[in-house]
Amino acid sequence: MAAARALGLSRLAAASAPLSGRLRPHPPRGRTPLPRAALHGSAPRPAARVALVLSGCGVYDGTEIHEASAILVHLSRGGAEVQIFAPDVPQMHVIDHTKGQPSESETRNVLTESARIARGKIADLATLSAANHDAAIFPGGFGAAKNLLCCIAPVLAAKVLRGVEVTVGHEQEEGGKWPYAGTAEAIKALGAKHCVKGVAEAHVDLKNKVVTTPAFMCETALHHIYDGIGAMVKKVLELTGK
Amino acid sequence: MAAARALGLSRLAAASAPLSGRLRPHPPRGRTPLPRAALHGSAPRPAARVALVLSGCGVYDGTEIHEASAILVHLSRGGAEVQIFAPDVPQMHVIDHTKGQPSESETRNVLTESARIARGKIADLATLSAANHDAAIFPGGFGAAKNLLCCIAPVLAAKVLRGVEVTVGHEQEEGGKWPYAGTAEAIKALGAKHCVKGVAEAHVDLKNKVVTTPAFMCETALHHIYDGIGAMVKKVLELTGK
Repeated sequence: MAAARALGLSRLAAASAPLSGRLRPHPPRGRTPLPRAALHGSAPRPAARVALVLSGCGVYDGTEIHEASAILVHLSRGGAEVQIFAPDVPQMHVIDHTKGQPSESETRNVLTESARIARGKIADLATLSAANHDAAIFPGGFGAAKNLLCCIAPVLAAKVLRGVEVTVGHEQEEGGKWPYAGTAEAIKALGAKHCVKGVAEAHVDLKNKVVTTPAFMCETALHHIYDGIGAMVKKVLELTGK
Repeated sequence: MAAARALGLSRLAAASAPLSGRLRPHPPRGRTPLPRAALHGSAPRPAARVALVLSGCGVYDGTEIHEASAILVHLSRGGAEVQIFAPDVPQMHVIDHTKGQPSESETRNVLTESARIARGKIADLATLSAANHDAAIFPGGFGAAKNLLCCIAPVLAAKVLRGVEVTVGHEQEEGGKWPYAGTAEAIKALGAKHCVKGVAEAHVDLKNKVVTTPAFMCETALHHIYDGIGAMVKKVLELTGK
């Protein structure tokens, strides 16, 4: 599940750590702040400045890898400037994906694991500042970090924005196509409005400037999820007005 | 760098472990063989059966995450049936991507880490059988596994197929756009033919049935790399004749 919020990042703290959103083939240079670079070198208008917030590397550990990668591809095509952030905290658990359960003895750091997706171009979430970005995108995932829950993102929006409109797809399981359909009820219980959408669609809450798409909440082919994330990114970039 | 070989998997050993290429939102069920599922539910013709061979999770550890994800999206759109494999061996090193250098004390297993990208639907490379697949795709990455080198994939093809035609992009650095341009010389030194291609192109060696694309050998925006991988996957699926 991927969700995005344009503007209004005042809840997010502190100074900015500019970071290249461009994924480079050479070894990363660590956490040193780097100048921003447009993901698309020939953007026809001023590039939207987008923060991508990761929470690990692998669904159930944190960020769902394919959602994060799809977001970066669509932001690149949209000519955005991207900075990638993650919290510098221990993971709550480390999933052994071959078994589908946590490895009891293992511990990993959320920022360090997120850097695998960011190819090293990543900064501590604590340095994220609304003043430096037009939008922030929170890919989904079911992982949890100690002191920071990084859960299915629209639920996070519902938790912090009273009355926000979000989508996690359909509200009935429909024979297993929507295995997390019950999430819509949890969203309503938080005082938010759930809007039914297909996997290739995105919902825009214009008042709160929140864009959501079902992504992996739907049991479907990967390219449909990729397309839904593309619809979300397109709406986010439209909301930035750039 | 992503490279693909259609047919001719006789070098790869043993019985098949069928595996769903579909990325599921629920927890993985471990290494138990599962029936194949088309990534596209309504493929208009018999689906090509494609093996995707991973070598870890993160460039310099092994598989470049964004290359692997793009391959899966394009295979999904192309209606392929995908099985994902990785060698069940220790990684040579574990990269701290925030520092761009190995973590001395850490050890990880290539198959277990690859399962983060496969979302658990993965089998030991030793069980891969040519008889069960129309093509195999080897995403690039600079990682190495003890007993199995998983290097920039076209070099691997050049190593095992005398006289094969491959591309790693351009043969001059061009001011840093092609930082690994020297790889072309290494390919020629192995007796293979290097064909100059752009990042959004793929080269097809019809005789050896090998398809290659530069991918991250080029310093460019991510969506151009995604498009080049799309061109490669399209040619691979054409070569399967399905």
